[in-house]
Amino acid sequence: MKLDILTLFPEMFTNVFESSMLKKAKDKGAYDYDLIDFRTYTENKHNKVDDYPYGGGAGMVLTPQPIFDAVADLKAKQQSQPRVILLCPQGEPYTQAKAHELAEENHLIMICGHYEGYDERIRTELATDEISIGDYVLTGGELGAMVVADSVIRLLPDALGNEESAAQDSFSKPWLEHPHYTRPQDFRGHQVPDVLLSGNHQKIDDWRQYQSIKRTYERRPDLIDESTLSDKERQLLNQIKAEQGVASDNGV
Amino acid sequence: MKLDILTLFPEMFTNVFESSMLKKAKDKGAYDYDLIDFRTYTENKHNKVDDYPYGGGAGMVLTPQPIFDAVADLKAKQQSQPRVILLCPQGEPYTQAKAHELAEENHLIMICGHYEGYDERIRTELATDEISIGDYVLTGGELGAMVVADSVIRLLPDALGNEESAAQDSFSKPWLEHPHYTRPQDFRGHQVPDVLLSGNHQKIDDWRQYQSIKRTYERRPDLIDESTLSDKERQLLNQIKAEQGVASDNGV
Repeated sequence: MKLDILTLFPEMFTNVFESSMLKKAKDKGAYDYDLIDFRTYTENKHNKVDDYPYGGGAGMVLTPQPIFDAVADLKAKQQSQPRVILLCPQGEPYTQAKAHELAEENHLIMICGHYEGYDERIRTELATDEISIGDYVLTGGELGAMVVADSVIRLLPDALGNEESAAQDSFSKPWLEHPHYTRPQDFRGHQVPDVLLSGNHQKIDDWRQYQSIKRTYERRPDLIDESTLSDKERQLLNQIKAEQGVASDNGV
Repeated sequence: MKLDILTLFPEMFTNVFESSMLKKAKDKGAYDYDLIDFRTYTENKHNKVDDYPYGGGAGMVLTPQPIFDAVADLKAKQQSQPRVILLCPQGEPYTQAKAHELAEENHLIMICGHYEGYDERIRTELATDEISIGDYVLTGGELGAMVVADSVIRLLPDALGNEESAAQDSFSKPWLEHPHYTRPQDFRGHQVPDVLLSGNHQKIDDWRQYQSIKRTYERRPDLIDESTLSDKERQLLNQIKAEQGVASDNGV
């Protein structure tokens, strides 16, 4: 995969892309990236990338010319029809399903605004996707682009080592992860639950499934789609509801 | 505000904290930060920070000792009772309201896991908050910590310049932002809407409010709490629903 990131702050990305998984995946050839300061594409003599909004109001607006020309140049270089992703608070909420969708592409261009809004023509004529990583306000799109890059690249073939990819992913299944414990068994008076020391794998699996469903029910009931549950999951969920004094769906 | 970040990859943060708003805010004295590699707190001779999970299974688990000792040391240094924030997929979904809440604190400690899960005792005995920045899988907590830092620090007094803070924030009000346009009026055949060139400020305000409500209704109906709308907002929302062939709530 080729990843092109348009930003006014390319230096923000270098250490993130040159560390940890993102570096290893690049070294293995899973992807490559370029950081493009779209200020270098401006045609005005002061290299201005923003201007006042038509109709008045506070704040500056990113002007279309440099961003249009940078995207055209990057498409021509790759001879591709890439997804052009605008990071912005008005975008669709980013999900793991979207990460899987983007991981199928060969070329992604991500555009990072900063402080300012985008001229609407960037949105309507250039972007194929608008993404928001969450309902909070950030200084710019740079952290959003890093989040999308990290979540997508780790899904690429050969990006992760065996050990890492073997770890189960939250959000790839419908439940939050169960608690994990490691040594020591007694850490300053806080014990590992007996069941995990029992050597009884069936009991351990049952405990983990119960904890996983309980944690999801308590913290993120919005993630539970009751129509997709297995009989075992439904039974455990009803048991948890009963323990917490909530009437269950089928009277169990 | 003092920000302490516990991570195995401190180098990922430096360029992000030394660029743009985060750098300016630090230079103005709005906050200061330290990056702590918690591997330096390990008491075992190989400086291992993780170990196998009790009860078996794939993946390694971050062991409690180095993280407990690092947090105790940082509390002692600041003589504070900080919020101790665990970045993890099991955490509460991060919101702008949470950013405002954290911006009231004097000392935040953020803990970034990487690949592995946390030993549960870190969660139950040490963390005051568990935060997830979204329902997607990342390689580690580092990007989450950057997102929380950026969103919180920009809310601190004196962090932003006048121009930036004057810009209206999405999620500080219930509606997504209306479209913005800047020069040129005709960009390669794509025009700025006439109303924005009219000089009629009432019409411009009306157009922007309509667009803002329409965009929110189309993209993020989940953000609309109809019980909190003004009469004008409710009227516009009903008008938009009618235009789209949806029955409105009060028969208008």
